[in-house]
Amino acid sequence: MLTHPHIVLTLRRHHLFSQLPEKTFQDVCTLANLKRLPGHAPLMHQGDAAERFFLLVSGQIKLHRVTGEGQEHLVEIIQPGQTFAEALLFTQAKAYPVSATALKDSVLVSIEGQHYRRALEDQPKICLAILASMSIHLHQRLKDIDTLTLANASRRVINFLFQERDALSGEVVLQVPKRLVASKLGIQPETFSRILHRLVEGGLIEVQRRTIRILCEEQLMGYQAG
Amino acid sequence: MLTHPHIVLTLRRHHLFSQLPEKTFQDVCTLANLKRLPGHAPLMHQGDAAERFFLLVSGQIKLHRVTGEGQEHLVEIIQPGQTFAEALLFTQAKAYPVSATALKDSVLVSIEGQHYRRALEDQPKICLAILASMSIHLHQRLKDIDTLTLANASRRVINFLFQERDALSGEVVLQVPKRLVASKLGIQPETFSRILHRLVEGGLIEVQRRTIRILCEEQLMGYQAG
Repeated sequence: MLTHPHIVLTLRRHHLFSQLPEKTFQDVCTLANLKRLPGHAPLMHQGDAAERFFLLVSGQIKLHRVTGEGQEHLVEIIQPGQTFAEALLFTQAKAYPVSATALKDSVLVSIEGQHYRRALEDQPKICLAILASMSIHLHQRLKDIDTLTLANASRRVINFLFQERDALSGEVVLQVPKRLVASKLGIQPETFSRILHRLVEGGLIEVQRRTIRILCEEQLMGYQAG
Repeated sequence: MLTHPHIVLTLRRHHLFSQLPEKTFQDVCTLANLKRLPGHAPLMHQGDAAERFFLLVSGQIKLHRVTGEGQEHLVEIIQPGQTFAEALLFTQAKAYPVSATALKDSVLVSIEGQHYRRALEDQPKICLAILASMSIHLHQRLKDIDTLTLANASRRVINFLFQERDALSGEVVLQVPKRLVASKLGIQPETFSRILHRLVEGGLIEVQRRTIRILCEEQLMGYQAG
């Protein structure tokens, strides 16, 4: 049974639990328990009966599987705040398809799957509410990906500017159209324009047709898109 | 009614539709339709009745809202393959909280929400199956975030090496312990070690205690973590 107030709160805030009615959530807590794993300790093995799923509270867990040829294959690294093995529960898979091992000292909540699943089957409204919160969560992550992609692309553009600039004038004269530069850098032409636009707005560069002038080297070097 | 075979297939492959029984999916298609929007055209306005949700097939859609002070606030940019406004449907929100406008010529599938929702309410098994595929999809996106974060961090480490290297010897001598360098670069110490390890394995650098030697400038400059 889960009693630690701050762990109960962490669970309650997760998108798989935030929509449960109080009574259902209490029942889930009764059947959940806290698990501490030292670094390198196994949590489960590929093929074990898939009866529980997990929320990682702190530490880091590696999901891995051994292929037919005996090679270990890394599937995923689980970070604090993430659940894992919950998809199995929804599909009623019988066995874990992967092994899980702590990469460092870890604290987890282990949740009994069958009861949680039945609560969802019996109350379609909860199921839809969870779909909604999961959907919002997914949109948030897609935005993160967008931001990170832009940050990566910005970094490539900035590196390109430093590589190509004339040491004396601090100017880059593009030898080919912008869309070709973008394609060389592996960036969509729209993204390339968007990045240049942001750098101009930030007062870091000046663009006149095919000439780009670096206005502030140091700031440009340290620039973080966000 | 949706008839274009490749659009039907695109819809079928999306995680909100891949788990529907064939009959339910056919019904959804009967009540869905294709929408073409030229760039800058509005799709819906904040406050409109939220009766439909959308899958973007091609183009780009901006979700935005106008605040009390009349300022436009960008909420999200939707890319091809993404659905939007589906969370509203699950929560039975009455009105769209945002406006949607095409950023370029776009093709969308517009899906009637009520029917889709009822199918899920009536068949909890489908609802759970969708939770499962959404969950798998979310894990995939979290892995993408991990990869992108590592790529960003790698780029910061590489830039740092180029900045700090001695022009003659091509060596970087760290003046402070690695964990301080990591913290200066805004990277977890474990991630910093993981990145150096990968660069060593790739034959791009050599590390001996606090001395890092760049072995191949050009390859290091173009390095992409992945």
